Amino acid sequence: MSGDLGLIGLAVMGQNLIMNMADHGFEVVAYNRTTSKVDEFLANGAKGKSIVGAHSLEDLVSKLKRPRKVMLLVKAGNPVDYIINDLVPLLEEGDIIIDGGNSHFPDSNRRYEELKKKGILFVGSGVSGGEEGARYGPSLMPGGDERAWPFIKDIFQSVSAKSDGEPCCDWVGPAGAGHYVKMVHNGIEYGDMQLICEAYDIMKRIGGFTDKEIGDVFTTWNKGVLDSFLIEITRDILKFDDVDGKPLVEKIMDTAGQKGTGKWTAMNALDLGMPVTLIGEAVFGRCLSAIKSERVRASETLVGPEIPKDAVKNRQEFIDELEQALYASKIISYAQGFMLIREAAKTYGWKLNNPAIALMWRGGCIIRSVFLGEITKAYRTNPDLENLLLDKFFTDAVTKAQLGWRKTVALATTYGVPTPTFSTALAFYDGYRSARLPANLLQAQRDYFGAHTFRVLPEFASENLPEGKDIHINWTGHGGNISASTYDA
Amino acid sequence: MSGDLGLIGLAVMGQNLIMNMADHGFEVVAYNRTTSKVDEFLANGAKGKSIVGAHSLEDLVSKLKRPRKVMLLVKAGNPVDYIINDLVPLLEEGDIIIDGGNSHFPDSNRRYEELKKKGILFVGSGVSGGEEGARYGPSLMPGGDERAWPFIKDIFQSVSAKSDGEPCCDWVGPAGAGHYVKMVHNGIEYGDMQLICEAYDIMKRIGGFTDKEIGDVFTTWNKGVLDSFLIEITRDILKFDDVDGKPLVEKIMDTAGQKGTGKWTAMNALDLGMPVTLIGEAVFGRCLSAIKSERVRASETLVGPEIPKDAVKNRQEFIDELEQALYASKIISYAQGFMLIREAAKTYGWKLNNPAIALMWRGGCIIRSVFLGEITKAYRTNPDLENLLLDKFFTDAVTKAQLGWRKTVALATTYGVPTPTFSTALAFYDGYRSARLPANLLQAQRDYFGAHTFRVLPEFASENLPEGKDIHINWTGHGGNISASTYDA
Repeated sequence: MSGDLGLIGLAVMGQNLIMNMADHGFEVVAYNRTTSKVDEFLANGAKGKSIVGAHSLEDLVSKLKRPRKVMLLVKAGNPVDYIINDLVPLLEEGDIIIDGGNSHFPDSNRRYEELKKKGILFVGSGVSGGEEGARYGPSLMPGGDERAWPFIKDIFQSVSAKSDGEPCCDWVGPAGAGHYVKMVHNGIEYGDMQLICEAYDIMKRIGGFTDKEIGDVFTTWNKGVLDSFLIEITRDILKFDDVDGKPLVEKIMDTAGQKGTGKWTAMNALDLGMPVTLIGEAVFGRCLSAIKSERVRASETLVGPEIPKDAVKNRQEFIDELEQALYASKIISYAQGFMLIREAAKTYGWKLNNPAIALMWRGGCIIRSVFLGEITKAYRTNPDLENLLLDKFFTDAVTKAQLGWRKTVALATTYGVPTPTFSTALAFYDGYRSARLPANLLQAQRDYFGAHTFRVLPEFASENLPEGKDIHINWTGHGGNISASTYDA
Repeated sequence: MSGDLGLIGLAVMGQNLIMNMADHGFEVVAYNRTTSKVDEFLANGAKGKSIVGAHSLEDLVSKLKRPRKVMLLVKAGNPVDYIINDLVPLLEEGDIIIDGGNSHFPDSNRRYEELKKKGILFVGSGVSGGEEGARYGPSLMPGGDERAWPFIKDIFQSVSAKSDGEPCCDWVGPAGAGHYVKMVHNGIEYGDMQLICEAYDIMKRIGGFTDKEIGDVFTTWNKGVLDSFLIEITRDILKFDDVDGKPLVEKIMDTAGQKGTGKWTAMNALDLGMPVTLIGEAVFGRCLSAIKSERVRASETLVGPEIPKDAVKNRQEFIDELEQALYASKIISYAQGFMLIREAAKTYGWKLNNPAIALMWRGGCIIRSVFLGEITKAYRTNPDLENLLLDKFFTDAVTKAQLGWRKTVALATTYGVPTPTFSTALAFYDGYRSARLPANLLQAQRDYFGAHTFRVLPEFASENLPEGKDIHINWTGHGGNISASTYDA
């Protein structure tokens, strides 16, 4: 009974997180359904560390200190429920179950409620950082039953990444809030990756750059405002050669999977009515990549503009403008992500801590970056900041980046290189800063064909167009005057 | 017992559809929960027509011929279930319940199954065309229990719109297929409306056109390839003056609602993994319009480029290019919509009839257009057409439109007028015709940080990069060799 934490699931994340915990002096009990994995782990990675094996759930539970802390790192979905079902009879009131998988937040909401009734404290924790992160300091985003926090805080904050000495782990909020914030993190990760891919594609197809040259650009960018884990690994990837001395990346099939957290984020954005367009386009970008054979066939029929060899007149200018496009688009994506989090807090009745969320993402996780330090600062300066774009640092950044951003999108548009996320970010920026959008025409159309009514702009209110009222106009002179109050066409 | 059909729900669509049915010689029994509406209707719109009132469900059912056909035109959601529950005990085996509301297709799937067990034939029918359509010929998209079709075909095809003599109504497919196709129709409607709004916004903000001038442009466009109901009403709206002689549309609040079928289409596209980007952006466009007060505040801080008075050098060229942009974007939107329908048929095991769907949308409904005649033709010529863009007519159209489309998007990008749907359509086109997309880099990133594995392009397969296998590379030289087969980070 000396185990600090039991961990179930010895795939890549589980093994690495256990080794990380052991390095920080915690005694971890490791268990896996296929128990040969336990023995294999004990004989290899776990060897010589404060890691104990368990060959059954009973065995695992019997080796843990009270209140018992059992963490699951298994595939999201039914497996989590099965294990929880098997675990609960073995546990006592006040014991803690932590789900560290990529569970969908509504599942975590449900598990939190179910376990609460049984006296078990449920924690749904986002874990990000992949293999390396889990091993040397992940970003951890725990939420759920706050009574569990004092018991796991030390372990979690010890093993987590640090940013300027502060742990990239804090209590997120109630019920499924931890997994919710992890979901948005992953959505943003989808966006960041797609943005980098578009920058690479532009350099390759319009600039005619080699992979080594593109790698050099990423090397430079990683020293500037874009300094981040994803830019860093992109640099490494572009410089990684296959055994024949040719860049490995060019041999990789261009089809990306999309099921999971990115999709959930986009669907949640639609559900909450928040225009998180960049993540949406990033998910759809993966969908389009996935229908490779159809694209290959289409490429034989559908034509585009020729890209002249001298499309880029001034390489440095081209690269600088591209950097601005990437930077500005990234700002938009994070602004949209925090808009979504704000709306979720409102809709689900959660109190979420924006500076803490930004700090959790600052280090350890896949989207870690210098940039997130600025976001932390912005929200610490003004916790009630309405929108990231309205913080002076980001207003200035986007203002400065704007010209290069526009030129890059116009260039890609002209030469037929697809930039769905650069483009949608710019469209969002231009829409967001528009006091008036053309939705007045749209409302007129809806009222014309469906009697859906509209409202008048206060400055134009009059006797026949009363302010704050749903107005229906008989646009055609015929047809009825019945408004569509009970039928939405 | 002489009623041909009973109709429940006397809001705008219900009343108009009843009058339409009566005009075609059918005897309709009208019922509404608030029965004063029945009396009001009988004393007004229904007067002198073959329309009978009912003051209870029992009364309604007792007045119908067998098999009884009861159509619901009530608000989607619980009200449909409540009425069905109350109706079923009054009906007999073989009777037909038709839900003509905007129900979500999974609900129609469920109702179809539940009613089948009770011997009642359920039909979920899309009804489009708004007030005018319902009155003089809607587009009807019935699906569900095919045994009901012979009994309702005559009524449905009589009252529906006609296109070149053919009814814009045919049997769609099993279970919720009718509502599914209606949902996609509405999604496309969202897209068409947003596209028109962007064209209007460009003319207004970049061209400096007055509403009357924009109305003239739409008048011209309505005689060309864009000839359609939505262009026609836009023309009328732009020329519609308020009592003070000023264009009414400019007084309308620019906030549009988005909950409902457009959102469902985008969510379904994400779920099925189909890149239906244009509808997605159109829905998000409405979301952005809805946060008007935030936009007004943002407009005071966030700046954009000045639009010079002479931004448009050649008005005719500008208008022609804009027309091409609108036309090409619209082609993309419909191509995406049919991609989604294709995938839905595969996923849900429905046999759907593409030429029939195009014909149903050809007339009567909100998206009716000359253009849909071309789509009908394309699918009649080749029912197995992989993608609308690969039909010669549309390949040629998009090829011809391409230059104007690119110039328009570049112009809007340069001058800061948001064109989310024009832009995403172009990005999709350029992505779809790309045999290679930069997703190879994305797959490398995923393998780098999460051991997610990748596949090799067949032409680069080798001993260390075997074709058709999931490959994991140790990119860093350190870290483990465990691939993430059971954990999706």
